[in-house]
Amino acid sequence: MHILITGAAGMIGRKLTDALVARGTLQGQPITGLTLVDIVAPVLPDGVPGAAIAADLSDPAAANALIEARPDVIFHLAAIVSGEAEADLHKGYAVNLHGTISLCDAITREEDYCPRLVFTSSIAVFGAPLPEVIPDDQPTLPLTSYGTQKAMGELMISDLSRRGFMDGISLRLPTICIRPGKPNAAASGFYSSILREPLAGQEAVLPVPDTTRHWFASPRAAVGFLLHAAELDLAQLGQDRALSLPGVNATVADEIAALERIAGPAATALIRREPDETIAGIVAGWPEAFDPARARALGFKAEPDMDTIIRAHIEDELGGHITIKERGAD
Amino acid sequence: MHILITGAAGMIGRKLTDALVARGTLQGQPITGLTLVDIVAPVLPDGVPGAAIAADLSDPAAANALIEARPDVIFHLAAIVSGEAEADLHKGYAVNLHGTISLCDAITREEDYCPRLVFTSSIAVFGAPLPEVIPDDQPTLPLTSYGTQKAMGELMISDLSRRGFMDGISLRLPTICIRPGKPNAAASGFYSSILREPLAGQEAVLPVPDTTRHWFASPRAAVGFLLHAAELDLAQLGQDRALSLPGVNATVADEIAALERIAGPAATALIRREPDETIAGIVAGWPEAFDPARARALGFKAEPDMDTIIRAHIEDELGGHITIKERGAD
Repeated sequence: MHILITGAAGMIGRKLTDALVARGTLQGQPITGLTLVDIVAPVLPDGVPGAAIAADLSDPAAANALIEARPDVIFHLAAIVSGEAEADLHKGYAVNLHGTISLCDAITREEDYCPRLVFTSSIAVFGAPLPEVIPDDQPTLPLTSYGTQKAMGELMISDLSRRGFMDGISLRLPTICIRPGKPNAAASGFYSSILREPLAGQEAVLPVPDTTRHWFASPRAAVGFLLHAAELDLAQLGQDRALSLPGVNATVADEIAALERIAGPAATALIRREPDETIAGIVAGWPEAFDPARARALGFKAEPDMDTIIRAHIEDELGGHITIKERGAD
Repeated sequence: MHILITGAAGMIGRKLTDALVARGTLQGQPITGLTLVDIVAPVLPDGVPGAAIAADLSDPAAANALIEARPDVIFHLAAIVSGEAEADLHKGYAVNLHGTISLCDAITREEDYCPRLVFTSSIAVFGAPLPEVIPDDQPTLPLTSYGTQKAMGELMISDLSRRGFMDGISLRLPTICIRPGKPNAAASGFYSSILREPLAGQEAVLPVPDTTRHWFASPRAAVGFLLHAAELDLAQLGQDRALSLPGVNATVADEIAALERIAGPAATALIRREPDETIAGIVAGWPEAFDPARARALGFKAEPDMDTIIRAHIEDELGGHITIKERGAD
């Protein structure tokens, strides 16, 4: 079982790598090779057979070189985030569209080869006007270049799967929360930072109203989605290989209430409300909630509530330790 | 007013060229240059200022060279048909996807440039399961590589229009009927040939049941759609720059009844029923009818019925002359 992960140096890529190494198997077979690729060389864990490669996938030669090794399963995570794709048109199309096209094209040029491809798409393929709860047959109408590039990738992966060149699936990940580490260029960053910073005893800025509703899954759930997608019988999906995924439907007020239940009022007191019309405007066009019936029927599982998302962060990132609690929040 | 037409050597491209030359103006301005491009050099009508160029648009250098001249209006018709895109995967993606991407990319690299782009998409962006009448918010779920490539182009054109790099529109043309000349590689060819051949006194083969229903517009209506799209205020479309168009909703039986009304029973007697399960299977996944409310509200007009489509063919292709009638059909 040879596995290729693109975007392996990113947050989800690193967690997926760790999860695969911890399991040691995929699809019931031992993992005998792990190729990690990103624009900067990822770190291959000690004692794991494989390679860590710095490469630009939008260069067809780089994609061809990776695919010549004929990996059995490909996790295609490489992307630049929405804020950067909007700020730099040509970089966004190069990485998010041409990266995917080059990889797909390289796969079609190998003879008698049909790898499992798990592609991280996004709920950004949907844009306003949207119903309060988005059904599985909602048309994709992106309002960002990032969402456009992901929707184009979904179409190509469905087509090449129908034609037997790959066995592909596109996962429309919920907004990842709590994203560990430093904020990135995503406009959605505050959804994580209003929980992450107070849990670490630090101030956070909330730029939107408390009534703002959105769709979340933890990094742990995201890795679970990817592994489940790699092992699922995809013939069940039929022609449409793109799936909206389960998540937690929560308002900012729900996030804050869960934070207070877990870390007390001293934590929520660290959230400073600084309305930002630009961010509020971007967020207003985003999906609020989904009814991902297809994905649920296929066994994809997210957290049941925001409390569970916060506890997963405390376990996975903080060693079970909340700074704020020790400061006497209870 | 400088106009660029890609795919100008094709049937619609030639008719559009003739219509533009006959009008002499577009958007109220005199046409001062007409650049015609196709994989084989198109024919520039006598006395018209412009150029006829043989070029492969999937080569970015070719696209850049065409766009450097900064045409005001671009009709992007270049494509290979569904049958060929299915038979030759790489040629289909090269012409139908990379041709469109190269053109779009070249446009974004010109400074202070925002041309009108009219892109011929197709009802093949929709695939089964479909409702009997397809609404404007039907999700695009293509069942062919051709439909996939067109749907991907639609997404990119909507995004680049939102960002101000072009003022684009994608027209999902109905199946063109009666297509003049020889049959092409399209599986839809019989819809035209069961009318075209009998009108010329020749036999035609019908491979599907008479109850098969589909969505049609004449070549004359298609040219009308393109010209209307070139002159319309596209800000009215909002973010979604792809439009399903009006057409004639008719069964094969409706086609045959209209043929009999116009050319008599001797014409319909020339239709030979030879069921073909492969073609019937392909056609079964296609749209049957649309409710193109947005396009109607924007003033797009198709023929009212199949009789009018047949009469347009007799006027435009046969000089008003029906062979079969002279043979005593009435």
